Amino acid sequence: MKFNFLPQNFNFFVLFERQVGYAVDAAVCFRKVAEQGLADEESLERMKEIEHQGDEAAHAIFDQLNKTFITPFDREDIHALAIELDDVTDMLNTIINRLKVYKLTGVNANLVKFAGIIEESVRAMQCAVHGMRDSKNRAAVATSCVEINRLENVGDDLRDQMLSELFEREKDPITLIKWKEIYQDAETILDICEDVAHVVDSILVKQA
Amino acid sequence: MKFNFLPQNFNFFVLFERQVGYAVDAAVCFRKVAEQGLADEESLERMKEIEHQGDEAAHAIFDQLNKTFITPFDREDIHALAIELDDVTDMLNTIINRLKVYKLTGVNANLVKFAGIIEESVRAMQCAVHGMRDSKNRAAVATSCVEINRLENVGDDLRDQMLSELFEREKDPITLIKWKEIYQDAETILDICEDVAHVVDSILVKQA
Amino acid sequence: MKFNFLPQNFNFFVLFERQVGYAVDAAVCFRKVAEQGLADEESLERMKEIEHQGDEAAHAIFDQLNKTFITPFDREDIHALAIELDDVTDMLNTIINRLKVYKLTGVNANLVKFAGIIEESVRAMQCAVHGMRDSKNRAAVATSCVEINRLENVGDDLRDQMLSELFEREKDPITLIKWKEIYQDAETILDICEDVAHVVDSILVKQA
Repeated sequence: MKFNFLPQNFNFFVLFERQVGYAVDAAVCFRKVAEQGLADEESLERMKEIEHQGDEAAHAIFDQLNKTFITPFDREDIHALAIELDDVTDMLNTIINRLKVYKLTGVNANLVKFAGIIEESVRAMQCAVHGMRDSKNRAAVATSCVEINRLENVGDDLRDQMLSELFEREKDPITLIKWKEIYQDAETILDICEDVAHVVDSILVKQA
Repeated sequence: MKFNFLPQNFNFFVLFERQVGYAVDAAVCFRKVAEQGLADEESLERMKEIEHQGDEAAHAIFDQLNKTFITPFDREDIHALAIELDDVTDMLNTIINRLKVYKLTGVNANLVKFAGIIEESVRAMQCAVHGMRDSKNRAAVATSCVEINRLENVGDDLRDQMLSELFEREKDPITLIKWKEIYQDAETILDICEDVAHVVDSILVKQA
Repeated sequence: MKFNFLPQNFNFFVLFERQVGYAVDAAVCFRKVAEQGLADEESLERMKEIEHQGDEAAHAIFDQLNKTFITPFDREDIHALAIELDDVTDMLNTIINRLKVYKLTGVNANLVKFAGIIEESVRAMQCAVHGMRDSKNRAAVATSCVEINRLENVGDDLRDQMLSELFEREKDPITLIKWKEIYQDAETILDICEDVAHVVDSILVKQA
């Protein structure tokens, strides 16, 4: 194994920017599926491809990590960030696959709302990750992390409200089972974005 | 960043004792909700406040960890302990919110039983965490950890028995869905307490 | 505490081989239960015993880790490998307990299929773990890891297909709830096997 003894900051930042880009692509794809009320074959194919590219981006980071002796920030933070970013894309792939498996078609205003918030959170995540390159972005990165935390709280309330309405209104238990899982999965995506914000936060604190 | 080069044992123990105190408050609040058969606004507000204080306690530990060079025990154990303790409080907040969202009112003997066991386990967790301050408490800490493990096994059997009865008795699928989730969440809290015991155990072994 | 300053490779490899052996026993037990269409008392007892032995094997690894100064590979990889292998056995125990709690009897062709794939994946996991002893097995270990990844993808498609059919065919919501959980649990086992493969992969890369 050859070690790079000099910090290969360049590589890690480029790799993370690529990886978070796939998360944004996945969030946009999910929002479109929600807006058109159909997880069609084209969207499923597109999402599968994004998820695959995201996997490769994560593996490139793990490989780089294993080959690099001095890293721009703690090894465990690099590892955690790559895992969490991968989880965001994976979960977006899972949710649109569930829409297909459960044959949920037709525009659902709740899902459109959730997809919009998820896209906002993933875009804030992208700002945070891009900002890590340079310490002069510190304040902007912190602002993005606060925004991601705020959106997670919004998502929590939204899910509770949607579940309340669902249990109130939906009398068919099988339909209820499907939407209950979709709303809970949607909220889980915002949880994972918040985990990403925590890792970025922790990197910032250590470099203070 | 300023480093404290001397072990700041004092700080970490005080911070963990504060954090585990919030978990006890949350367990007591949940037991009261179960006993009165109602997640009323006052209890929800109280739990939200406890959860918020617990969050702040966890963040104080992460900040302290990032600023301290020499720690009283392994950094990854400090991090894991703070995360797991936070998860206990979060999950107690989640479960009483679910009682509200699902409009589950009326005293449920099973839930009262579970809430009692959870409080016992969280109190044993508090003994274990307080005991870590001084190696002369080693035997008492180990006893608390054994107790937490025992209660997790009790919880496993209880959940299986409650689910068996529920699937036997409850003919309304929507009511069944609600209680199934509540019982499984309750058992998850005992699993997380067991994770806390494992971290404390591992800290003890390393200091042997 | 006494430290062993020489690499105790022997111990760790023997311990991991023992632990992965229990995962294989559990997978065989689950396949038999699926094939006979009944989680009978004998199988439940057998699985409980395997799970208990698996727990002891994991704890032996943690103890050894805490007492050993120089390890054959990274400490965090040893810890992660023991945790993930334990999760495989635990989850197999969970799934056959659920079959009993839900009173699911009679041969289900889907479950038999899943159990067969799980056994294949766990056996590939055993090959990978055994191969770690000697770097001349590198290619064989890598092949096993690729196979585990392939089986996880097969499992994903299988679960989606089974859930599609279930939601199409099953009109009783309570029966649907039971099988939905069983199929999702079965797929989770393949996910955990994939996590094991990732840890083994990462150990290989670092030793390259």
